[in-house]
Amino acid sequence: MNASLGFRKVAGALMSLAIVLSAPGLRAEEPINPDKPFAETFLLLQLSDGDPEKQDLVLSVAGNLLEHYQPDLVDIEITTFGPGVTLLFADNDRRERVASLMAQGVRFSVCMNTLDTIERSSGARPELLGDILPVPVGVAHILERIDQGFVLVRP
Amino acid sequence: MNASLGFRKVAGALMSLAIVLSAPGLRAEEPINPDKPFAETFLLLQLSDGDPEKQDLVLSVAGNLLEHYQPDLVDIEITTFGPGVTLLFADNDRRERVASLMAQGVRFSVCMNTLDTIERSSGARPELLGDILPVPVGVAHILERIDQGFVLVRP
Amino acid sequence: MNASLGFRKVAGALMSLAIVLSAPGLRAEEPINPDKPFAETFLLLQLSDGDPEKQDLVLSVAGNLLEHYQPDLVDIEITTFGPGVTLLFADNDRRERVASLMAQGVRFSVCMNTLDTIERSSGARPELLGDILPVPVGVAHILERIDQGFVLVRP
Repeated sequence: MNASLGFRKVAGALMSLAIVLSAPGLRAEEPINPDKPFAETFLLLQLSDGDPEKQDLVLSVAGNLLEHYQPDLVDIEITTFGPGVTLLFADNDRRERVASLMAQGVRFSVCMNTLDTIERSSGARPELLGDILPVPVGVAHILERIDQGFVLVRP
Repeated sequence: MNASLGFRKVAGALMSLAIVLSAPGLRAEEPINPDKPFAETFLLLQLSDGDPEKQDLVLSVAGNLLEHYQPDLVDIEITTFGPGVTLLFADNDRRERVASLMAQGVRFSVCMNTLDTIERSSGARPELLGDILPVPVGVAHILERIDQGFVLVRP
Repeated sequence: MNASLGFRKVAGALMSLAIVLSAPGLRAEEPINPDKPFAETFLLLQLSDGDPEKQDLVLSVAGNLLEHYQPDLVDIEITTFGPGVTLLFADNDRRERVASLMAQGVRFSVCMNTLDTIERSSGARPELLGDILPVPVGVAHILERIDQGFVLVRP
């Protein structure tokens, strides 16, 4: 057996292992939001209720967390599906608060599947606020974000 | 020192490491549901509300995800406890939708502890739909499923 | 190349890897609650609703889990924020049940941020039950607990 070749094999195996091992960590460290290159905390806030109190709670939780972590160090997304999508309708009373959170880097996403269902039953597609990230299926998007390293919390 | 023996030790250690490392991956790849041998996505939908709108939402989320991932590639379980167990009562209005999801491979589980509590307070044990997986304690079952590789989402 | 030195380097790298790998496991095994040195299951129950039925559900879930796992083997924390903090007000009807769970080792935490908000809007700071763990921001505390190895469930 050639010792040097053996070392190379072992070293190669170690390198592969190290790459596999560090992958989940690396993934979380890659900026998911290009506007948040220094984020260390990745939080996905779920809103699937139409209840106005719940909508207020989600918005205030996001605001408090921006303050707690400092806006640059936290990547917060509020993802909506089911009755929760109404938060992002253009005529929602909370649009100023949504805009203020967006200005501080909070991302908002909306389930297209839910909007399709609303359109089918009401005959009209609701108008959304600007700069909302559309996703095909809300819960599938949640699974992707968790896979990217986000922690899901439903206030 | 015998170089060849040394290599074997290092290689053996690497193998052990590789086995340890791959274990969580293997777990998720083992079919939890024998009817879903090709599932890559493992989703546990929690229903602990009695609210009819919430029950509709959980059922429609499951239906949309089956379509999004293709039924063979996703293993979806709807787990119920507390007021959520009423979804699986034999006289629930949504029994056709439950049956349709079951026919597409969605699993439904129910907390026996909750049924015991209902029986104690009402004097009668509610009759359930067929083919429901009984679990002793709903939240303990959730912890087991998460340990098996399922992601928990509460619509 | 010196074969023996090479082995030491590889062995050293393997050791470092093993230490890195075992770290998350070690973390979960360190007793987070000194009163629960044998806990193997770490559960964080979230309460962010003011709804009395939801408060009852969270308390009964905690009670059932203590019985299911045996109190010594499970570390349960009920963490409250938003309207959920009312569970821990000194005048809450459920204070006996809270006290009983505490006596069995369940920990209760409350979001200071929510209490500040209530104080600002009502003019008075609500009085809390004794032995509650205060945390600055509820959802930030949840992220820390998840990082420590707790599983989050919101009944």
